[in-house]
Amino acid sequence: MARPDGRLPDHLRPVTLTRGWSTHPEGSVLVEFGATRVLCTASVTEGVPRWRKGSGLGWVTAEYAMLPRATNTRSDRESVKGRVGGRTHEISRLIGRSLRASIDLKALGENSVVLDCDVLQADGGTRTAAITGAYVALYDAVTWLAARRSLAGRPENVMHRSVAAVSVGVVAGEPRLDLNYDEDATAEVDLNVVCTGTGDFVEVQGTGEAGVFSRGQLDALLDLAVAGCLDLAEAQRKALS
Amino acid sequence: MARPDGRLPDHLRPVTLTRGWSTHPEGSVLVEFGATRVLCTASVTEGVPRWRKGSGLGWVTAEYAMLPRATNTRSDRESVKGRVGGRTHEISRLIGRSLRASIDLKALGENSVVLDCDVLQADGGTRTAAITGAYVALYDAVTWLAARRSLAGRPENVMHRSVAAVSVGVVAGEPRLDLNYDEDATAEVDLNVVCTGTGDFVEVQGTGEAGVFSRGQLDALLDLAVAGCLDLAEAQRKALS
Amino acid sequence: MARPDGRLPDHLRPVTLTRGWSTHPEGSVLVEFGATRVLCTASVTEGVPRWRKGSGLGWVTAEYAMLPRATNTRSDRESVKGRVGGRTHEISRLIGRSLRASIDLKALGENSVVLDCDVLQADGGTRTAAITGAYVALYDAVTWLAARRSLAGRPENVMHRSVAAVSVGVVAGEPRLDLNYDEDATAEVDLNVVCTGTGDFVEVQGTGEAGVFSRGQLDALLDLAVAGCLDLAEAQRKALS
Amino acid sequence: MARPDGRLPDHLRPVTLTRGWSTHPEGSVLVEFGATRVLCTASVTEGVPRWRKGSGLGWVTAEYAMLPRATNTRSDRESVKGRVGGRTHEISRLIGRSLRASIDLKALGENSVVLDCDVLQADGGTRTAAITGAYVALYDAVTWLAARRSLAGRPENVMHRSVAAVSVGVVAGEPRLDLNYDEDATAEVDLNVVCTGTGDFVEVQGTGEAGVFSRGQLDALLDLAVAGCLDLAEAQRKALS
Amino acid sequence: MARPDGRLPDHLRPVTLTRGWSTHPEGSVLVEFGATRVLCTASVTEGVPRWRKGSGLGWVTAEYAMLPRATNTRSDRESVKGRVGGRTHEISRLIGRSLRASIDLKALGENSVVLDCDVLQADGGTRTAAITGAYVALYDAVTWLAARRSLAGRPENVMHRSVAAVSVGVVAGEPRLDLNYDEDATAEVDLNVVCTGTGDFVEVQGTGEAGVFSRGQLDALLDLAVAGCLDLAEAQRKALS
Amino acid sequence: MARPDGRLPDHLRPVTLTRGWSTHPEGSVLVEFGATRVLCTASVTEGVPRWRKGSGLGWVTAEYAMLPRATNTRSDRESVKGRVGGRTHEISRLIGRSLRASIDLKALGENSVVLDCDVLQADGGTRTAAITGAYVALYDAVTWLAARRSLAGRPENVMHRSVAAVSVGVVAGEPRLDLNYDEDATAEVDLNVVCTGTGDFVEVQGTGEAGVFSRGQLDALLDLAVAGCLDLAEAQRKALS
Repeated sequence: MARPDGRLPDHLRPVTLTRGWSTHPEGSVLVEFGATRVLCTASVTEGVPRWRKGSGLGWVTAEYAMLPRATNTRSDRESVKGRVGGRTHEISRLIGRSLRASIDLKALGENSVVLDCDVLQADGGTRTAAITGAYVALYDAVTWLAARRSLAGRPENVMHRSVAAVSVGVVAGEPRLDLNYDEDATAEVDLNVVCTGTGDFVEVQGTGEAGVFSRGQLDALLDLAVAGCLDLAEAQRKALS
Repeated sequence: MARPDGRLPDHLRPVTLTRGWSTHPEGSVLVEFGATRVLCTASVTEGVPRWRKGSGLGWVTAEYAMLPRATNTRSDRESVKGRVGGRTHEISRLIGRSLRASIDLKALGENSVVLDCDVLQADGGTRTAAITGAYVALYDAVTWLAARRSLAGRPENVMHRSVAAVSVGVVAGEPRLDLNYDEDATAEVDLNVVCTGTGDFVEVQGTGEAGVFSRGQLDALLDLAVAGCLDLAEAQRKALS
Repeated sequence: MARPDGRLPDHLRPVTLTRGWSTHPEGSVLVEFGATRVLCTASVTEGVPRWRKGSGLGWVTAEYAMLPRATNTRSDRESVKGRVGGRTHEISRLIGRSLRASIDLKALGENSVVLDCDVLQADGGTRTAAITGAYVALYDAVTWLAARRSLAGRPENVMHRSVAAVSVGVVAGEPRLDLNYDEDATAEVDLNVVCTGTGDFVEVQGTGEAGVFSRGQLDALLDLAVAGCLDLAEAQRKALS
Repeated sequence: MARPDGRLPDHLRPVTLTRGWSTHPEGSVLVEFGATRVLCTASVTEGVPRWRKGSGLGWVTAEYAMLPRATNTRSDRESVKGRVGGRTHEISRLIGRSLRASIDLKALGENSVVLDCDVLQADGGTRTAAITGAYVALYDAVTWLAARRSLAGRPENVMHRSVAAVSVGVVAGEPRLDLNYDEDATAEVDLNVVCTGTGDFVEVQGTGEAGVFSRGQLDALLDLAVAGCLDLAEAQRKALS
Repeated sequence: MARPDGRLPDHLRPVTLTRGWSTHPEGSVLVEFGATRVLCTASVTEGVPRWRKGSGLGWVTAEYAMLPRATNTRSDRESVKGRVGGRTHEISRLIGRSLRASIDLKALGENSVVLDCDVLQADGGTRTAAITGAYVALYDAVTWLAARRSLAGRPENVMHRSVAAVSVGVVAGEPRLDLNYDEDATAEVDLNVVCTGTGDFVEVQGTGEAGVFSRGQLDALLDLAVAGCLDLAEAQRKALS
Repeated sequence: MARPDGRLPDHLRPVTLTRGWSTHPEGSVLVEFGATRVLCTASVTEGVPRWRKGSGLGWVTAEYAMLPRATNTRSDRESVKGRVGGRTHEISRLIGRSLRASIDLKALGENSVVLDCDVLQADGGTRTAAITGAYVALYDAVTWLAARRSLAGRPENVMHRSVAAVSVGVVAGEPRLDLNYDEDATAEVDLNVVCTGTGDFVEVQGTGEAGVFSRGQLDALLDLAVAGCLDLAEAQRKALS
């Protein structure tokens, strides 16, 4: 059974990382994984939250959201519902943890960066696209801080690891890389993997959406995901050069 | 005193209306007034809210929002704060009223359209850009309904008036059209005007931000605004042809 | 077609401004426009909100609300719903802006005044009655501050403009002043105008409730509104003398 | 030690019950206990909440609230805070239970009455004034239903008991009836009592605000309260005749 | 008519007070009144809320809650509903007031204690069990403070009164002590009484659930309640020795 | 470096599963992993949520929460804060997904089960204890439904897989099973694994808390986790027999 867009099982969708898409933020990237389109902005503020003051450490946090009609049918706004949903919370926390793995918070010094990842159009893999794009936005924000001589450490030490993410899954019995929405909706197993540029793991989140999965399936999926993340790391390097 | 971008007092900023910017919605327009950039989507659902059932009339409503870093400094998300702010509410209501003036709800039949206007980048005039873009998105959504033969009336009767909006203001004593953020922030008087394609008024909202204004000033501002709206109506016609 | 209460098109309803209706507030006025009855109180606190500290400027803000059975059918309380509605927000903001136009915030010094406008009974024109009454309550609160020698400027400089408001509209094709509820519900055009005691504009908010309006109609409505506001300014002067 | 207003320990403050204070509600009473002033309205709706449908029984509920400047210092609005406070909840529930004791819900039939008790000015005893006034408003609403022949039972059976309430307390060691705010703030014991017109108890809520109280003190306070409630029942009868 | 569990009308259910049920809190008691089971914990923090700083006085507050399936049918969580209900608020306030009567806040010094009373299983009398158990937990927390020499006064002066609570009611015409759920649901009168170890009253809250009650009934219920509270005080003394 | 409680790296803490801890729920288990203590209840309701009606499928959902003083320092209640936090949401969703893997929703028929997992005392591994206990509570609830002949399928088909969970992590460079709080707080890598009774995976969630982890580390942790889950499955079998 061929993939809906004719890709090979171990191929990514076309990936683009457009830096400077917005003019106001210190870092701003429009990331596209096929038809999935996420605007990632990095906003710098001097100082850190109260509970962290005087620690000498910086802080990086993330907020993920979807426009109401990013998806095929319209969703109600969380602002109108008056509460952030569980899925949103969960993804925001994942992005924040992942990006904190890329940065040396001591070298950042007492500065804060908020990464806003707003899904403008969704076609599967929004959280992994967000992490991949947010890394580039965060890098630009750190460069901006370096230019203002506001970092505690040497600029080259601050972003000490690149971080990228991809989804993998078992669809129709076949392990596949970078699922789009239609594949994701029918996947038997769904795994989101966050890796460094050298192929180590930052996060592994696997779910048997329609049943369970064996150790062998998990191993095959991890292989696919690591290879995909290395490709994304290369794309990040190119975008930043 | 020249305008920051060298425009004449009665000139609009460059206006673009990009239809079909997103693939999911029934109508979708990225509208730009200079650096102001608003994504307007029109989402159709069959049927109407409970209080309107059986009336034979359709319903059109709007929701306006800003991405947290659309502006120069980051704003907290209303979803995280748990409540929609007064300014957001006010603008959403204005957009909804304005667009309902463009459509014959009886000819629409018992269908609902939600217009989502999300500001991706703000540089003054976001509400007027939103109205101008939402009109085009709504038009496309009605065309989509016509193609499915889901309208109660004849398609050419549904969108019975075009609607566009522009801000005008007195800056440094001079009446000016289509203020950008820097002008808006220093305006003595600020007027948002919604007009039809034939120059009639749908809404007029004027505020003496730093003082009061005379009947003469109001008249001059209304003249500027009507002319600006007629230019925008022309841009809408071109975009739709 | 005669008006429901037999008034001429350019006549206000009977207006009363009862000062000192409540004993606790620094200023307190029960304002009546016909059957519309709003309790306006002015509450003084020393100091200003944090973002304004050290500016030497005072602050005036307003909150508007309706008792649940001020209207013909009962509305749910916003406290019970857990959120303030869009209309309430919008009117509170309008009242605040309007009253800030009446006062020299520098002469007020770092004092804050909250204007609470609670509609005890509604029959159209609640927001315009609220502005008209709140001006008198604010005046009394400033007098109270003057008596305690707590103003930064000379008392006669603080309230530098009187402010009053009235609604006008086109009903059955006829421009009319100070609409009551039945007229408001059937008006084709509805305009709320806030003027100074010398007939300059503070706010103009016009809506084509059932269609659109021409420049000629707008001009006729503005004429009516200015004349009505001047009458209200006279009533304020009498009440304060 | 004399009472602040010179009353004898077993005397009520001047009590007024003004029926028909508002024009919209089916029942509406402005009740005053001295300077305490509460607007009680009774709003009738046909039918009952879902969980009660088909039971043949009616429903009566109450909501209590204070205007922000009903008190000596301004309180934030619960609508703005986004939640109803514990004290408000508690008093609303007390008023609802008390009034349900006055009415035969079977004879009322499947009709609902909401009693809104809004404190316009507070000087102690607001909850007891509210109960006393709400009884009269409820009575008028039942009369209104009777006139429309909408009751399930015979009108004279519906309001089967009159209900009134008063506060008593020990101040400076002395049991006193109907405390005003200054007395309430210094009371050692505070008791709110709801009685029928024949002196039976509906509710008794006593608190040792500053310590504890003996059986003897409780007995003395109950005696005072029953006598006070009988006087209030007489005032209700007069107001309704 | 015998009681469901065969008890005499003036008998308590079996009462157990298990100290140290949890390991983290400074005081922790699992209290059982028959099948009613409440976990009471006392959490100490140094310092007091801002409004009390510098007063030299400590602060004690309480929060009551039920697990969703403590009851026969599941209730929605208040955290999920986004608001604390009226009943919860009311009981939390009652527990807080009652426990503050047991402690000399001056001798406590500027320390705060939060009493959390979580109902693990409900069979009537949860608020009275909570008060009875919270007293023991508070006592243990004060002992913990004494051991750290953190009290302002002498340890033996801090807990200056023991406090316990019980419900009484008229069921099938008979005054009964310590109602279980089935009795509570059919009680004509329901009274919650909080007493000191010497039989003085802290709180008396009586409600005619299905009608009204006479002075004679009230007297009989108070007699039963005081006797029950004295028995509970004895159980507290035993648990603490 | 030895473990704080002297365990071997691949040993679980003592595990107890006490069925029938509460009397009201259809299934109720107090699960203990060492000092971690979670009350898991299963509440059955006939029917399913609206969006699932007529599907023939049942529904299982879960809610996780902590008592405020389950932890070493007190946390504010989410009900009082008015919103459920991100961590709570995330764990509730994990428990729900995990338990749905254990049950055949078609054989369950249109019945709903809510699994409430309330942490009474926390010492690491609360989410994995909750899943392990909730499986037993769900099993009992299904048995209860079977006894009432309310299942769509044959009872032995409904609970088609056992599900248990355990945490593993790298502490001081050593892979360890079932971390307690002190170990969890210092772990370099933290992995929560949900397995079936035959060692297949339901969920795998791994995080590099303080850095990243290699494929070799991940493999070692997965080995430990599967062995631990098989031991827990054995404990579940014993508890249910």
